[in-house]
Amino acid sequence: MILSALLTSVGINLGLCVSFFTLYSIIRKQPGNAFVYFPRLVDKQKSEGQGDEFNFDRLLPSADWVRRAWQLSEEDLLSSSGLDGLVFVRIFVFSLKVFTFGGIIGTFVLLPVNYLGKQLSIDDFYDLPKKSLDSFSISNVDNGSNWLWIHFSAAYIFTGVVCYLLYCEYSYISSKRIACFYLSKPQPHQFTILVRGIPSSYGRSFSEIVESFFTEYHPSTYLSHSVIHQTSKIRGLINDADKLYRRLAHIKSENRTKQNFKRDGFLGLFGRKVNLLDHYEKKLEDMEDNVRMEQNSMAEKEVAAAFVSFNSRFGAAIALHIQQGVNPTEWVVEQAPEPQDVHWPFFCASFIRRWIYELVAAVATVALTIMFLIPVVIVQGLANLNQLETWFPFLKGILSLTVVSQLITGYLPSLILHLFLFFVPPIMIWFSSMQGYVSLSQIEKSACTKLLYFTIWNIFFANVLSGSAFYLVNVFLEPKNIPRVLAEAVPAQASFFISYVVTSGWTSLSSELARLFPLLCSFIKKLCARRDGDKFEVPAIPYYSEIPSVLFFVLLGVTYFFLSPLILPFLLIYFCLGYIIFRNQLLNVYAPKYETGGNFWPVVHNSTIFSLILMHVIAIGIFGLKKLPLASSLTIPLPVLTLLFNEYCRKRFLPMFKAYPTECLIKKDREDQNEPNMREFYDNLVTAYRDPALMPVWYARNGDTHNSPLLHSEP
Amino acid sequence: MILSALLTSVGINLGLCVSFFTLYSIIRKQPGNAFVYFPRLVDKQKSEGQGDEFNFDRLLPSADWVRRAWQLSEEDLLSSSGLDGLVFVRIFVFSLKVFTFGGIIGTFVLLPVNYLGKQLSIDDFYDLPKKSLDSFSISNVDNGSNWLWIHFSAAYIFTGVVCYLLYCEYSYISSKRIACFYLSKPQPHQFTILVRGIPSSYGRSFSEIVESFFTEYHPSTYLSHSVIHQTSKIRGLINDADKLYRRLAHIKSENRTKQNFKRDGFLGLFGRKVNLLDHYEKKLEDMEDNVRMEQNSMAEKEVAAAFVSFNSRFGAAIALHIQQGVNPTEWVVEQAPEPQDVHWPFFCASFIRRWIYELVAAVATVALTIMFLIPVVIVQGLANLNQLETWFPFLKGILSLTVVSQLITGYLPSLILHLFLFFVPPIMIWFSSMQGYVSLSQIEKSACTKLLYFTIWNIFFANVLSGSAFYLVNVFLEPKNIPRVLAEAVPAQASFFISYVVTSGWTSLSSELARLFPLLCSFIKKLCARRDGDKFEVPAIPYYSEIPSVLFFVLLGVTYFFLSPLILPFLLIYFCLGYIIFRNQLLNVYAPKYETGGNFWPVVHNSTIFSLILMHVIAIGIFGLKKLPLASSLTIPLPVLTLLFNEYCRKRFLPMFKAYPTECLIKKDREDQNEPNMREFYDNLVTAYRDPALMPVWYARNGDTHNSPLLHSEP
Repeated sequence: MILSALLTSVGINLGLCVSFFTLYSIIRKQPGNAFVYFPRLVDKQKSEGQGDEFNFDRLLPSADWVRRAWQLSEEDLLSSSGLDGLVFVRIFVFSLKVFTFGGIIGTFVLLPVNYLGKQLSIDDFYDLPKKSLDSFSISNVDNGSNWLWIHFSAAYIFTGVVCYLLYCEYSYISSKRIACFYLSKPQPHQFTILVRGIPSSYGRSFSEIVESFFTEYHPSTYLSHSVIHQTSKIRGLINDADKLYRRLAHIKSENRTKQNFKRDGFLGLFGRKVNLLDHYEKKLEDMEDNVRMEQNSMAEKEVAAAFVSFNSRFGAAIALHIQQGVNPTEWVVEQAPEPQDVHWPFFCASFIRRWIYELVAAVATVALTIMFLIPVVIVQGLANLNQLETWFPFLKGILSLTVVSQLITGYLPSLILHLFLFFVPPIMIWFSSMQGYVSLSQIEKSACTKLLYFTIWNIFFANVLSGSAFYLVNVFLEPKNIPRVLAEAVPAQASFFISYVVTSGWTSLSSELARLFPLLCSFIKKLCARRDGDKFEVPAIPYYSEIPSVLFFVLLGVTYFFLSPLILPFLLIYFCLGYIIFRNQLLNVYAPKYETGGNFWPVVHNSTIFSLILMHVIAIGIFGLKKLPLASSLTIPLPVLTLLFNEYCRKRFLPMFKAYPTECLIKKDREDQNEPNMREFYDNLVTAYRDPALMPVWYARNGDTHNSPLLHSEP
Repeated sequence: MILSALLTSVGINLGLCVSFFTLYSIIRKQPGNAFVYFPRLVDKQKSEGQGDEFNFDRLLPSADWVRRAWQLSEEDLLSSSGLDGLVFVRIFVFSLKVFTFGGIIGTFVLLPVNYLGKQLSIDDFYDLPKKSLDSFSISNVDNGSNWLWIHFSAAYIFTGVVCYLLYCEYSYISSKRIACFYLSKPQPHQFTILVRGIPSSYGRSFSEIVESFFTEYHPSTYLSHSVIHQTSKIRGLINDADKLYRRLAHIKSENRTKQNFKRDGFLGLFGRKVNLLDHYEKKLEDMEDNVRMEQNSMAEKEVAAAFVSFNSRFGAAIALHIQQGVNPTEWVVEQAPEPQDVHWPFFCASFIRRWIYELVAAVATVALTIMFLIPVVIVQGLANLNQLETWFPFLKGILSLTVVSQLITGYLPSLILHLFLFFVPPIMIWFSSMQGYVSLSQIEKSACTKLLYFTIWNIFFANVLSGSAFYLVNVFLEPKNIPRVLAEAVPAQASFFISYVVTSGWTSLSSELARLFPLLCSFIKKLCARRDGDKFEVPAIPYYSEIPSVLFFVLLGVTYFFLSPLILPFLLIYFCLGYIIFRNQLLNVYAPKYETGGNFWPVVHNSTIFSLILMHVIAIGIFGLKKLPLASSLTIPLPVLTLLFNEYCRKRFLPMFKAYPTECLIKKDREDQNEPNMREFYDNLVTAYRDPALMPVWYARNGDTHNSPLLHSEP
């Protein structure tokens, strides 16, 4: 790729970005789109104020929202999106700091050194626009040149700065975590643990066994428990009933509208409608009876797992941290998730079965990650022109058109890759939910890690080493050769990744801002809503898919920092955009569905450390290739020191993300004692972890609003 | 090596064994040797009964002690040597079971198959005694022969049986561990934790900080604490005083004897002695004053670490298992060791310093393990004949004698190797004590693991791969080649390891029985005792050096089981001998100095799993070399399944070796409530963890027995 081509691409994409920004600035003001651009406001019923009347200002783009997003304080962010939202934004802050520093060194020190090298001996020294991007990369520095010591020093300095920033960030987020805990109101999950592997005993129900165990061993702190039941059947019944109820409500409201305005005369048709209504109502009643019958026979369907609540946080921590029974595979305890975060459908209680599922999920993830490109390449191969002509002979005429054939050969393979990629996040979520996690947050965190591996392997390594999966695996089976292989392959892909940052990074970010896809979805939804009862929901930010893609750009920046510093300015734009955009879609669009207390940060930290180590390994290889073996050997301490730093952080900060210490727990417990409504809280705690499928249900016969809750619990 | 040579070696070594057994049977009955052969009885002051009168029976060897050792019940073993002793003996029981099964399959199935092969095409088919040992190994089976499927099946069956036995043994020992806990009397370490990294606070002593922290956060369970002091100076002073006191006591007793019997007349000399006595007594008094002065100034030398005791085991467990302070590097807690097990001299309190020491120790261990052979080979090279002649020209005459030169070339290198090996266990102990462990038991357990790595690397791999350290390391840096390299090298060393088992295994075991070395030591000690006051001590079994050597033989047996089954009968003899001998020196000789509660078993388990995996890797390689690639591929699931089994055991049993569960702790605590002398126990608990160097001292002026305790604590 030559410089002018890159600049053209940058121009096009910058244009796209600006148009998305403009588009957003205009269409966000249209009240009809509030559901898409301000769902959080809509949810708070605050959107009415905007009114529906036409206003010329609505058609003018304005940038004050950028200012507002930029000035948003961390306290506002914390209160609107919780610690997880803050952590997400801090990834951008951290990256901005890192790449501002890296960008200065890269652009003003490394770039000139690279450009002045003669290794690639490109003729047109003064014709900058026609210059290949490779002449800005380390490949252009002469073999054995002492200028490489500048790269060597840059690697050391940059690593030091990144580690320092990582340390500050880890320290900041962990202190925020403790501060948030101190500020939090009493919450059910702080007082509750999940017990699995309850040993069975002949003639006694699991409920009795749990009751007797905890009254025996935790008499002063045990409060209550709720045993978990197999409710998949009820869940199915309730789902069916829900659908029927919505359809019924929809028909009723339609009837009323039509009665009022149009269909007064069509009595025959109206009569049929009434019959249909009666029929549906009868069916709904039957379904309700079925659900109640199933609910009453639940006692026999107990699972060997229960949520056990205590009267203090410290009491719950005691039961959580000390092995309960003699057999470590029985009475297995873990921190309970927030009640709304519980993932009820997949509640596997047996230790050995969970362990097997976990293994299966791990194997499946590794297989999917390593083998992903095989089916893609095969399908891409099948979908070429000749093959299509063989399969669909009638298309021969159309396929022979130049435009069509160019479109197919140029876009079909990439379309197929994206189609395959589209299914990866749901598959990873499915793998994680199979592993026996009991909460959405755990499932998403686990899927986040899986997707990160997947992205690094299939976008970075598969592109860099551009070979078959078996070749890739083979490279990593001979650890001695890794530095050399990477050093040969990585710099060659610099221009590809620069254009990757510009095209897919900026465009996807700013189209996320314009939220065109959700807009389309909501349009389709509105069409569909004619059949089903419509239900409005504020979207939750899918951390599990967003964080890996951001971290992938961090990896690119760190790895290419001294190989081809040209990437850094483009990355800086990416992180700037991300910072504004996500501070804005956190404030207005996404609502937190759960709170992990900043538990995504360790993932970010580890991934950054991995990027650093990768950079070091490539540095070791490249100094070897460039005939500077001394620099190569002197780089070896760098990954060792980085790993030691990581190990220190693991000991210094990670325990704070696993559990809260005695000091905090007891302080909070003592605060509660002065709280006037603790009695009420304890009363609610007893029922907090009841499976929603077991709540008494009745469907309001005269329900006429779409937003009325579908399920009611009896007082 | 040919068969007849092996049989000769077996004959010689069996002869040696029998003579050691006979020697033991006779000299154990000589009352003068009771200190060596029955130190435990001596310690209990029961040896007087034997009397000193001559008895002809004393000169006849008898074997009834073998019967007694064999019949000894596990309960006797438990009460005499604790769970650690039992675990040690169970290693032999487990090995006997494994190698009896392996021996049957190996001798009656694999050996004939190997022998009937023609790969090595050794001519003298019928001249058994001249047969090379290689014709009994897998190397003799024809390439591509279907007989190899028998080896393949044997590998699967043997692995299954070993895993089953491992499971039973792990289960048995963990249940014994819990049973022993239930039977145990209240012990200080069950109620106590060690806290390190106490945060300093201006104007308050560590003692005050600990007191206020635990009364604040553990008000209902906290009992007392003792802060640790820097006592290295006092320790030195007390040591000097001890030595002086012993010398004084010795001189006094010598004087009295001489006064009574011989030297009545030599008044001049006697007068000088009295002056000397006065001088020494004066010096001792000064030393005592010094010690007391130092002890009084101790308050300023507090270390940021303390033993904190609680009024129940569960109370201690709560503080142990939940992170105490917000900063995980402060208030770091761990289970306290038994008071007599505390390793006072090296008490490092700072988290970061301990972490650095740990890293240094790990690096030093790896370096020592990998590089050990380099200096050995260099020194061996320097110590050859020519070199010696150059250095010591005056030895030329002696060195030219054939006997001397043969002795030097034949034995000097091996002597040097053994001399170097002799220093390894103390070095490993030193490394482990540097790591910041606070108890002898932890130090020895850690040294045990280190020695195991060392043995496997320097005796197994260095012999098998017989190359330089760098070559060895290189082999392991290319994991793909490991199976091939091992499969080529390991079978070739079969005869070496068979003779290793026969010569070094049996001989060292049975000489351990005869305890010739301790006998020599005690003789030297008696000579030395003329200067120092003599002090009798029952030896503690050095698990850290014994277990690795036994486990090395397990590794040999498992690895060579299907390569050269000829090794198995000899290993069976080894484990039989070991079983008898160690049941006997546990009963009579060694006294437990500490009790880890069977914590050595996980080391045994892991090492056996490692041996199995090594066997599988070699199998994969050998089936490849033998042109049976299908068998090679079908062996791959075997290590995977074994690792899964190991992982299951880790989850199923390992937690039981880390800590006792709530159920056990609370049951024991409730039992204690009915115990009448708990008040007294609590009173003792307060002072149980006082540093011996801080105990008030006085030296008895009129001490006239050697056995009187040297230090007395004031009431």
